[in-house]
Amino acid sequence: MLKRLDHVGIACRDLAASVAFYESTFGLTVVSLETNEEQGVREAMLMVADAPAGMSYVQLLEPLGPDTPVGKFLDRRGEGVHHVGYGVDDIEAALATIGASGVRLLDARPRHGSLGASIAFLHPRDVGGVLTELEEAASH
Amino acid sequence: MLKRLDHVGIACRDLAASVAFYESTFGLTVVSLETNEEQGVREAMLMVADAPAGMSYVQLLEPLGPDTPVGKFLDRRGEGVHHVGYGVDDIEAALATIGASGVRLLDARPRHGSLGASIAFLHPRDVGGVLTELEEAASH
Repeated sequence: MLKRLDHVGIACRDLAASVAFYESTFGLTVVSLETNEEQGVREAMLMVADAPAGMSYVQLLEPLGPDTPVGKFLDRRGEGVHHVGYGVDDIEAALATIGASGVRLLDARPRHGSLGASIAFLHPRDVGGVLTELEEAASH
Repeated sequence: MLKRLDHVGIACRDLAASVAFYESTFGLTVVSLETNEEQGVREAMLMVADAPAGMSYVQLLEPLGPDTPVGKFLDRRGEGVHHVGYGVDDIEAALATIGASGVRLLDARPRHGSLGASIAFLHPRDVGGVLTELEEAASH
């Protein structure tokens, strides 16, 4: 069902500094900078790929404020990996199957994510401590 | 320099149960089961890929004992994402460049990793809280 390791979402305190680090130290390239008010983040997607092999990304996330999910995460855990995102072909079907298996869905229906994707999160307590995101790319 | 998002390493308390979960809930397939005494882990690599697009993996890690790095991680943080691994073409060259940029190397020289790869870890304090692994695949 999971088709790609799409991205690793990393919480940071200073998006510009983190982007500069990943660009200069690791040679990654920013392909998107977005503010997502609904999720309370400013975010950068940096491509990690040998095109035309599967695309994958580092997603750097800076909270819009301390009371956002990523703001609370930083407070509790500090900077580091926030979630893991996997590509699926059909997010509605994936959510139905996974929900039926007993994993709690944080989003019963998909919402708007980076690069126009449809995304939904699974409860980390039901996925071995990993906040897990499913995403169906915009081109599907 | 980073060519692929190779894997996400996930610390778990019960490898068999975690493998069964990722197989049954997410439809992933185990491609390797190894014990790495040097790193103090039993581990499973599960493929997440649309072959022939780039290969990527979920790596499930169960510690061989409480005094291993993963054992201490579980004690401190609980189950969850332990590290992120990126593929590089030439790990010696990557370590030289990254080390020269000021990032501390936990492994000055590559050592043996999953699936015959050469691997090395970077200090998480110098990579925004992310324990970061570089790996050069065995086929290079």
